[in-house]
Amino acid sequence: MKNFQYYNPVRIVFGEGQIKKLSDLVPKEAKVLITYGGGSAERTGTLDEVKTALAANGNRSVFEFGGIEPNPEFTTLLKAADMVNKHGIDFLLAVGGGSVIDGSKFVALVSSLTEDDSTVLRDKAWDALLSGCSTIDTAIDLGVVLTIPATGSEMNNGGVVNHSERQAKLPFRSPLTFPKFSILDPTKTLTLPKRQVMNGVADAFVHVIEQYLTYPVNAKVQDAFAESLLKILVEEGAAVKADPENLETRQNIMWSATMALNGLIGAGVPQDWTTHMIGHELTSLHGIDHARTLTILLPSVMRELKDSKKDKLLQYARNVWALDSKTDTKQDDDSIIETAIVKTENFFRSLGLPVSLADAQLDESAIDPIIKQLEAHNMVKLGEHGNNDLAVSRRILERSLTSAA
Amino acid sequence: MKNFQYYNPVRIVFGEGQIKKLSDLVPKEAKVLITYGGGSAERTGTLDEVKTALAANGNRSVFEFGGIEPNPEFTTLLKAADMVNKHGIDFLLAVGGGSVIDGSKFVALVSSLTEDDSTVLRDKAWDALLSGCSTIDTAIDLGVVLTIPATGSEMNNGGVVNHSERQAKLPFRSPLTFPKFSILDPTKTLTLPKRQVMNGVADAFVHVIEQYLTYPVNAKVQDAFAESLLKILVEEGAAVKADPENLETRQNIMWSATMALNGLIGAGVPQDWTTHMIGHELTSLHGIDHARTLTILLPSVMRELKDSKKDKLLQYARNVWALDSKTDTKQDDDSIIETAIVKTENFFRSLGLPVSLADAQLDESAIDPIIKQLEAHNMVKLGEHGNNDLAVSRRILERSLTSAA
Repeated sequence: MKNFQYYNPVRIVFGEGQIKKLSDLVPKEAKVLITYGGGSAERTGTLDEVKTALAANGNRSVFEFGGIEPNPEFTTLLKAADMVNKHGIDFLLAVGGGSVIDGSKFVALVSSLTEDDSTVLRDKAWDALLSGCSTIDTAIDLGVVLTIPATGSEMNNGGVVNHSERQAKLPFRSPLTFPKFSILDPTKTLTLPKRQVMNGVADAFVHVIEQYLTYPVNAKVQDAFAESLLKILVEEGAAVKADPENLETRQNIMWSATMALNGLIGAGVPQDWTTHMIGHELTSLHGIDHARTLTILLPSVMRELKDSKKDKLLQYARNVWALDSKTDTKQDDDSIIETAIVKTENFFRSLGLPVSLADAQLDESAIDPIIKQLEAHNMVKLGEHGNNDLAVSRRILERSLTSAA
Repeated sequence: MKNFQYYNPVRIVFGEGQIKKLSDLVPKEAKVLITYGGGSAERTGTLDEVKTALAANGNRSVFEFGGIEPNPEFTTLLKAADMVNKHGIDFLLAVGGGSVIDGSKFVALVSSLTEDDSTVLRDKAWDALLSGCSTIDTAIDLGVVLTIPATGSEMNNGGVVNHSERQAKLPFRSPLTFPKFSILDPTKTLTLPKRQVMNGVADAFVHVIEQYLTYPVNAKVQDAFAESLLKILVEEGAAVKADPENLETRQNIMWSATMALNGLIGAGVPQDWTTHMIGHELTSLHGIDHARTLTILLPSVMRELKDSKKDKLLQYARNVWALDSKTDTKQDDDSIIETAIVKTENFFRSLGLPVSLADAQLDESAIDPIIKQLEAHNMVKLGEHGNNDLAVSRRILERSLTSAA
């Protein structure tokens, strides 16, 4: 196991009906800006529930900012940051999924980047994003009401912001952007469109893979926890498809997705993130849902990097898919690994997700622009060994053109 | 899954050589009291290492309080609290295992219970302990350098204090006693006496069991994580016995013991703690090591409560010990459960630990006094259903007289 620090001060408030706890969780005297996405927070009544809970505590200063996009847009978020300054907001309450939370974290950070205490300087905010927001040393407090289990943003301090005009989707992270609390009410996920549910399961699955499928360092707790989450996501992915009304399944998916990216399974182990970094460019250039970029790319990442990931791929085959070259003498290591990859593809397919660029109506002409953007964003040393250069990324993309299985 | 809140702000600093990070972790201007136990912190050089790290940051005001007992004594801890007040200490640095950490948490809480800002009022401190310290609303900051993996106290806010004269060992808990940080250097565990190592493995194992072996609520993440920890502790318990010098084994034991009682696997699931509550009386009356009281009692708890725990016992048999009545048609549920209990006993025995009162040189005459103390401490509604009364505790103790297997 590698040396590590693990620190995660997010208070999780989990369960049906917990939104009413907002009356205790948000300081009574706070000036609150509720941030949300499309109309679903309004349509489903969650927004009203949130406002009622705040009012129950005597919160009078409650403002709203809707319209944060599925890939939160830099320009939209800057408008929210301006609103923060205009009204003297000191508490952001993100109501939504990963995009709203990520976006709100960015708002919390960049609000201070002004000259006259009102309008946020766009250039400064862009520069900050390019440096992963490491230059910003103040942030507004943030709370979360999670409605989509997927990204894990509700229990970590990172985010991703999209800049359509610049065709860039960039990650940031700050010790200041751990949410003070996150309310996880699984009943809120019962009304999600099927597409978002399945995307969420796949997103969480690949988050685990990025922290697991590298090389062994004999970190037994982290590996066993990661394998547990992968198996639960496979099981509950099938369950939610078969019985979308089952609340227990929704509970398990929600808590799995949070645990998939709260730092715990990644502490003390190498991490990859190649799939994510190439995937961001696919979203940025073609608007493909984040999770779907991951399911398109992951099988090719596994195949292309089969040698350097061999030990962990065999462990993955054994412990997640119950394949074992030791007991199944007919199969050698390579075929065991290929079987595990095919099972992974079939799992994604079973959720209705694409596993190739062709599945997303893209062909070879998509590759050059992606490589160019990876270069522009300095994504030239990806992976747990830092040696996935542009040539490796190109081969991954070429493998992804059509499904191998 | 039940509704839950999970909050754990302890910063874990894990790995070889991390004690030097104290220079960043302890505020430079703090008046520090280093608390420790017997002579081992001195003998092994850990105390010097700690002092050197503090000095590197320019910490000048460093005091020491040694001699905290394996079951930290109320009267000893009050002396430390007096020292806190005498020197205006504002940071406690616990160097040791669970007893030193538990004791230091108690010191952090009771220091304020004075009339004239110097001597802590003994009666007030005792009353506070009887109420689980819930009446205390201030505490001194606490940091930890962990040397014995076992209790999990390094990453939670609870503790247990012993009062020999009153023959009481009582738990307390406070939102104020999460350590600010805990340094976990697995190399520090290489010099531990074998008895402490094995006690630690068993202690962590039973911590997991108390949060797992109840009744099913379909909490897949919590169950899978619990089963992972149990299997790792069985595996690494054997490994550390076979090869005590193996650092990777020590790493896995250390992180497992922390994860066993940091709130995570217990969030959203029923919990038992019968074994612990009866065990505390055994320690209090007979001075038996905490972990050994647990290994004496647990098999009997499993047998006595076999019916109410049946579903989870079968799950335990299947997922931890690979026993399954579905595939092994020769065995019915009852015999599968009994086999799992025997395997648990044999695991404890393999670590050199007792599995009956006879193994600890106690006979039937020990039972009445234990029951009397359970009654005195209001331990009359134990277990996940709150219906383990004194009659149940008596039957558990009677079953524990000699090993059933």
